[in-house]
Amino acid sequence: MINPEDNKSTSVIQRTTDYEPPRDISHFLIGRPLATADAPHQTIGKAIGLAVFASDALSSTAYATQEILVILAAAGTIAFGYAFPISIAIVILLAIVSLSYEQTIHAYPDGGGAYIVSRDNLGEFPALTAAAALLMDYILTVSVSIASGVAQIVSAYPELFQYRIAIAIACVLFVMLINLRGVKESGAAFAIPTYFFIVLMFLTVSIGIFRYFTGTLGLVIDPPTLEHLGETVSVVTPFLLLHAFSSGTAALTGVEAISNGITAFKEPRSRNAGITLIWMAVILGSLFLGISFLTTHIGAVPSEAETVISQLARTIFNGRGTLYLGVITGTTVILIMAANTAFADFPRLSAMAAKDGFLPRQLTYRGSRLVYSYGIITLAIIASLLIISFQASVTRLIPLYAIGVFLSFTLSQAGMARRWWKIGHLAPGVEIKERGSTIRYEKNWQFKMVVNGFGSLCTAVVMCVFAVTKFEDGAYIVLFLMPLLIGLFSMIHRHYSGVASRLSLEHYGEPPPYTGRHRVIVPVSNVHQGTLAALRYAHMLSDDVTAVHVSMDPDETEKVQRKWQTWGKSTRLVVVASPYRLFLEPLLGYIEEIIATRQSNETITIVVPQFVPSKRIFNALHMQTADMLRKELLSKPGVVITDVPYQIP
Amino acid sequence: MINPEDNKSTSVIQRTTDYEPPRDISHFLIGRPLATADAPHQTIGKAIGLAVFASDALSSTAYATQEILVILAAAGTIAFGYAFPISIAIVILLAIVSLSYEQTIHAYPDGGGAYIVSRDNLGEFPALTAAAALLMDYILTVSVSIASGVAQIVSAYPELFQYRIAIAIACVLFVMLINLRGVKESGAAFAIPTYFFIVLMFLTVSIGIFRYFTGTLGLVIDPPTLEHLGETVSVVTPFLLLHAFSSGTAALTGVEAISNGITAFKEPRSRNAGITLIWMAVILGSLFLGISFLTTHIGAVPSEAETVISQLARTIFNGRGTLYLGVITGTTVILIMAANTAFADFPRLSAMAAKDGFLPRQLTYRGSRLVYSYGIITLAIIASLLIISFQASVTRLIPLYAIGVFLSFTLSQAGMARRWWKIGHLAPGVEIKERGSTIRYEKNWQFKMVVNGFGSLCTAVVMCVFAVTKFEDGAYIVLFLMPLLIGLFSMIHRHYSGVASRLSLEHYGEPPPYTGRHRVIVPVSNVHQGTLAALRYAHMLSDDVTAVHVSMDPDETEKVQRKWQTWGKSTRLVVVASPYRLFLEPLLGYIEEIIATRQSNETITIVVPQFVPSKRIFNALHMQTADMLRKELLSKPGVVITDVPYQIP
Repeated sequence: MINPEDNKSTSVIQRTTDYEPPRDISHFLIGRPLATADAPHQTIGKAIGLAVFASDALSSTAYATQEILVILAAAGTIAFGYAFPISIAIVILLAIVSLSYEQTIHAYPDGGGAYIVSRDNLGEFPALTAAAALLMDYILTVSVSIASGVAQIVSAYPELFQYRIAIAIACVLFVMLINLRGVKESGAAFAIPTYFFIVLMFLTVSIGIFRYFTGTLGLVIDPPTLEHLGETVSVVTPFLLLHAFSSGTAALTGVEAISNGITAFKEPRSRNAGITLIWMAVILGSLFLGISFLTTHIGAVPSEAETVISQLARTIFNGRGTLYLGVITGTTVILIMAANTAFADFPRLSAMAAKDGFLPRQLTYRGSRLVYSYGIITLAIIASLLIISFQASVTRLIPLYAIGVFLSFTLSQAGMARRWWKIGHLAPGVEIKERGSTIRYEKNWQFKMVVNGFGSLCTAVVMCVFAVTKFEDGAYIVLFLMPLLIGLFSMIHRHYSGVASRLSLEHYGEPPPYTGRHRVIVPVSNVHQGTLAALRYAHMLSDDVTAVHVSMDPDETEKVQRKWQTWGKSTRLVVVASPYRLFLEPLLGYIEEIIATRQSNETITIVVPQFVPSKRIFNALHMQTADMLRKELLSKPGVVITDVPYQIP
Repeated sequence: MINPEDNKSTSVIQRTTDYEPPRDISHFLIGRPLATADAPHQTIGKAIGLAVFASDALSSTAYATQEILVILAAAGTIAFGYAFPISIAIVILLAIVSLSYEQTIHAYPDGGGAYIVSRDNLGEFPALTAAAALLMDYILTVSVSIASGVAQIVSAYPELFQYRIAIAIACVLFVMLINLRGVKESGAAFAIPTYFFIVLMFLTVSIGIFRYFTGTLGLVIDPPTLEHLGETVSVVTPFLLLHAFSSGTAALTGVEAISNGITAFKEPRSRNAGITLIWMAVILGSLFLGISFLTTHIGAVPSEAETVISQLARTIFNGRGTLYLGVITGTTVILIMAANTAFADFPRLSAMAAKDGFLPRQLTYRGSRLVYSYGIITLAIIASLLIISFQASVTRLIPLYAIGVFLSFTLSQAGMARRWWKIGHLAPGVEIKERGSTIRYEKNWQFKMVVNGFGSLCTAVVMCVFAVTKFEDGAYIVLFLMPLLIGLFSMIHRHYSGVASRLSLEHYGEPPPYTGRHRVIVPVSNVHQGTLAALRYAHMLSDDVTAVHVSMDPDETEKVQRKWQTWGKSTRLVVVASPYRLFLEPLLGYIEEIIATRQSNETITIVVPQFVPSKRIFNALHMQTADMLRKELLSKPGVVITDVPYQIP
């Protein structure tokens, strides 16, 4: 029948071909901020790198100051004076975290997110904690960024306020569609809006400070009415200040982005990535300080109806002119871009965790459109539900947000500190290769350990402050979900390990022989071209073929039997009468009878003819017999169900 | 390998075994009112037959009078006096329809629903119209009966009024679950509540009439306030009377049930069924007249808050005592039983229409639990949506209800009239066998034709009155949906006819030979016991086996290649490198390359190892590669995808 030379005479042939994705798949990958890490021939410089990775971090200036004011408002507008000192404290924290991450970039030139660093240095449980924290934060990045973006739009066009939830959902769906569609994102697509935002914000802050010192700035005209969220207090308590500080730390979200995507940079990539991080921190810190300073001096008031950024811009630019609209547009666009990066980060981290066996392994096939889409849609649905539940209010979403960010900061930096400790205790010349990085002795390890350790300590303290002050506002949800997620990851991991050990060939002995009786059963409801195709296939598989007809109607059966004389080609036809007009049950009954009486080492294949109608919708009109049999017979060893597709001409 | 004696030497072996459903499946069938038609050894007598088939018809006495009053209320309570004369007109109509159906029962001893009678005598289009009308009505039977049942409960316990929609949905789900579960319904399960209802209602009406004529009846104490639904008119117009008459014809719904289920009766079954129908009509007519008479004389008022039945019972029994609660309970139970019959009728008619190719053919396998469940769940969902949309109000649902019933009455009787005409023109002794009945010359065919023809005319007139008077109230929905449904049925029919002709072996020539090259491809991501099982199976199919490994990670690939030396048993292994970590695309690329270069008459089978985890939920953790390949390669002729299940020990 076939030429057995093909493989019998040769031993193991190992041919290697390379798969190059066609154009439409490369769309899916090239230029996508973090997927670029896979394509080292398309690296980017510092200027483009800043644009690609900074949108998440810089966009937080759009809401961080406002969230400080929201908390201070509990003690009346008089307390707003504390906003600037609190902002200074946050910028100091930013400096510590940035320096700490700069060290991570050099230690992990292949990308060192919190998950990798924790896994390699702290072990499984901290790594799972980091993964859980990060996955939740990617979801919240989408919700918070979009909610804040919509708040900017609503500030410029107050008549849209009542539609803010619908607009936010539309934005999430828009970003989802972009990501599902897989448009080509070039560096320029990121550079233009990011630099547009940076330039306009610096212009705004500079003019504002100039006017303040020349005494021409004045106060906000017609500020929105102050809304008290939560209880009011009569004096400014330390708790209130810590609470406000916690809210303001939202400014730090996104700082870790560069350390995840180092491979996207031109060589020397660690150096380039490190310098970009420092630039980003400086820009973020100065914008944040500038905004906080000016906000408190123009008497801006936190409100759901008009953002602080909007109040600031219209005070500095004397109304809602072109420059004002430019600031609002730039801020909205960079916020939506921040949400977009979460859509790239979420499947990326899922893939990493899946590769280690903590999430369904399908997620590791990152490019497979089906699986990828699944992650994107999941993210969009959860983020939309959060937006609806929290009425698209940044203030209500924030308590859920930053706790995860700071947990991952803490773990990442603690992992780095642990790594320096290991390095310090290596003999010179010894090299240990870990999955994410190479360890060899370095000088000044003590100093570097202290930097990372101090960073970790600071973020740990902030996290605790956050958990306590924001507990009632919603942080408890995160503290409740975290162990659930970690438990789920562990359960999945246990399943995979169990399966792997039970499938292992370690102590398997001899492989089973390639011989054995092979019996083929073909269910036949009617005799037509599709039946003949299935029958022909069945005879290819084995000489032992039985056709089975479930008879629900004697007239039909007579017709089948008559046709069988002509077309059945001596294949045995068994008729199973079904007086109750059942179809699946008699067929299963017959098959199970055969299974029960088979010889050992006998394989049974059920060959089912399946129509493929010209239009997919017509599938609903044809019995999916194979699927139903497969479901019922899944647990029987040595039974294979095959459907032979027959394309209806 | 196997003994070729088995089938080579013999010509067509035709063995016949009978399939007897095991106990759990018989639960599904036995005793179910209309499925009993399939089990002629379990026939029922007239008394049980009445109980099984009358619940739908008798239950309409619970709302028919009230719906007349609702319409008359537009002209004020003074118009209520017309309710009794209108009821008499409806009972005359009932008598005509019943006599007409009595003839159908004798003509169609195997069951003559409107669909069958129209199909056999009027043609395809009327049959489809009848099917569309009936399917819609089964849905509405569920909605209206449950809504009315809940209205009875709410009348007894007014504090439940605000929860009426939730209670109604719960009832629908309850009936759905009973039907999904397939409890054994014996005749007694129907007899007890039906006779309980009949006895209590006759008691109520008799005592009421006795008290009325002895002058001790009095009026309703604290009647509910009269709600005006729709506009008010100052005088009683003929339109108003016709409108009220239309609403009251809801009393006739369910009369056709016996003609559908004749085979359930003991022999002589046509005679027994016919007598049962007359009994049923007499009971229905007298209860309805009694209720209408008393209702108008106690000053009952139609209301969503308290049903007319409740007002009647508490007036006759002097308050909410045991007998009152008995009437409410009996009425509620019979209404829920009426909904239950629709759950049996809906899949039954679907199966019939499917057998004729107007609905997905899967529905013909009536007993297959999967498909049956599908119909039950669909019915429950649509009925629930209707209840929610119409606020569980019988009055709002009624305009949608009866139009379909009367359309099917009209078609059924017109078909019968046509049948008598044919019979009258047959030569004596000639017999024509149709699918549903046998036609031979009968005397008095003229008289019988007039009976059916007059019945058809009456119901046609009522239908037109209904369509005009109820058009605005909701009948337009039905008039709009009907053509859509008929169009859908026709489209499905066209698809099946097209497929059948294209698959036909009529002009097919010689069947293809059973030889040809068979190439087998086994995707291998890892080498373990499951891989070996798939490999062993592949070698059973053909000698030309190629394993394909998509390499996403060089270390993994090296391991696979090393293991392959030991376990691959000289099977060729092709490694496809996938630098972008794609999985499906490179595999598909390789397969499509093979497809493109294959010889004619070469079949390709892709054998995919598939884990079967011990718990079904863990399926989500394993790649369903076969399903994905199947989807992508469905349109390629000569490509078969097989998954070899490997049960994880």
